[in-house]
Amino acid sequence: MTAPDVITSLQNPHVKRLVRLRTRREREREGVILIEGARELARAVAAGLLPSTLFTCEALYSPEAHEVAATLPGPRVRLSREAFEKVSGRENPDGLLALVPTPAPRLPEPGEDTVLVVLHGLEKPGNVGAILRTADAAGAAGVLVLGRGADVYSPNVIRASQGSVFALPVAALDEAAALAWLAERTFTRVACTPDAPQVYWDAPLTGRVALVLGAEHEGLPPAWRAAEVPVRVPMHGAADSLNVATAAALVLYECVRQRRPAAR
Amino acid sequence: MTAPDVITSLQNPHVKRLVRLRTRREREREGVILIEGARELARAVAAGLLPSTLFTCEALYSPEAHEVAATLPGPRVRLSREAFEKVSGRENPDGLLALVPTPAPRLPEPGEDTVLVVLHGLEKPGNVGAILRTADAAGAAGVLVLGRGADVYSPNVIRASQGSVFALPVAALDEAAALAWLAERTFTRVACTPDAPQVYWDAPLTGRVALVLGAEHEGLPPAWRAAEVPVRVPMHGAADSLNVATAAALVLYECVRQRRPAAR
Repeated sequence: MTAPDVITSLQNPHVKRLVRLRTRREREREGVILIEGARELARAVAAGLLPSTLFTCEALYSPEAHEVAATLPGPRVRLSREAFEKVSGRENPDGLLALVPTPAPRLPEPGEDTVLVVLHGLEKPGNVGAILRTADAAGAAGVLVLGRGADVYSPNVIRASQGSVFALPVAALDEAAALAWLAERTFTRVACTPDAPQVYWDAPLTGRVALVLGAEHEGLPPAWRAAEVPVRVPMHGAADSLNVATAAALVLYECVRQRRPAAR
Repeated sequence: MTAPDVITSLQNPHVKRLVRLRTRREREREGVILIEGARELARAVAAGLLPSTLFTCEALYSPEAHEVAATLPGPRVRLSREAFEKVSGRENPDGLLALVPTPAPRLPEPGEDTVLVVLHGLEKPGNVGAILRTADAAGAAGVLVLGRGADVYSPNVIRASQGSVFALPVAALDEAAALAWLAERTFTRVACTPDAPQVYWDAPLTGRVALVLGAEHEGLPPAWRAAEVPVRVPMHGAADSLNVATAAALVLYECVRQRRPAAR
């Protein structure tokens, strides 16, 4: 027996809307993002975001989903297992999916030692999410997305970042505006490129640093490759053996290492 | 028109065998691995592996697949597009899939400054593959897999490693044998654990180093956590915000950094 207020029909308008919202275009049109999963929702709420609607399926709840669901405010819509699986983007959904107003773009107010991540042309959600997760762990102050660029609030990026994306200020700027914004605030642009003469650990990475990352195969266009500080990661194996998110992690943590108290 | 020697039937014994070989158990029973994709095959051949049979679908060839196919020796079996898509593990197959005898387990002959990677209980192919890719880039001498452990030659790991797995000696040992092997050769075991008192960049990581990595949530059992050198990665964000492959990359490259010529 299904309780009468549980949506079971795959033709229900809520179900059809959630399926439509899988596309970036529909999310942008409505000004909402989809956040699925207890951990990701907990991170979003911790960052001050609130669901406008929460879709639940108790039959699918993980223990963590039970806990998180109890703390979430706002209206709820209950879905049958079949309906939830239809709207879920996951192989093993945990019964929680929220519609949340798209976070307003934010640029960080840079401090003396601020590290920013600048994404150029990165598309793979796994890489973008991994970079956001590491940026959060390394204490980066925010993320600039160049042009239309990566959709950092796509369900796949949110998932790959494990919700870390919500802990970081994110803003999209066109390339010229980003260059001007960084220059006005005296950021040193650090670009990871395989042909840079300097290895990243030999580069001075204190002060305001903008770490510029490009797509693995295309790399960065000249205006961005001509950074004040181009750096490379030394490689022993095949030339393309380093993933862009791995290179980002190495340089981000070199920034942390050079800021450690003992180094001053 | 399909040429007469092209396999089109999904009931063909070759097709059925390739589908069966998607399971680890069947691959182990036959003593073969599946290598799909031009880049991965090129890496395997560069490492001295040779296909026992090459399955091709020219209609699906990428430009790189055209080039690599021309250099590969051995018998070929041509598949129709439909048959190839049936046996492929990829969303966008490039028309190359090889059966290759499973590489013999190899333990590296350690040198003075050898870095080894030891995998304990890691299961996610994406993480295992990413670690292998970085280990190759960082010049690690090989990989020890504890117990039955990760299937480093699964199609998903091969793919995530982009074929780097073939560049590295890999051996599976049971835990006691691995501890004895490492101790006899005076390896320092370095374990990444969140509660280690020392940050990885403060730890001495020269000489023979075995970097021990456990699953993200389970961590390492006491015998392995009690390493000579436990290290942690400092974290600013949420406690679980660092991926195991990211932590591995940071410590592997700290090994490289401490071995740089200027540091001697």
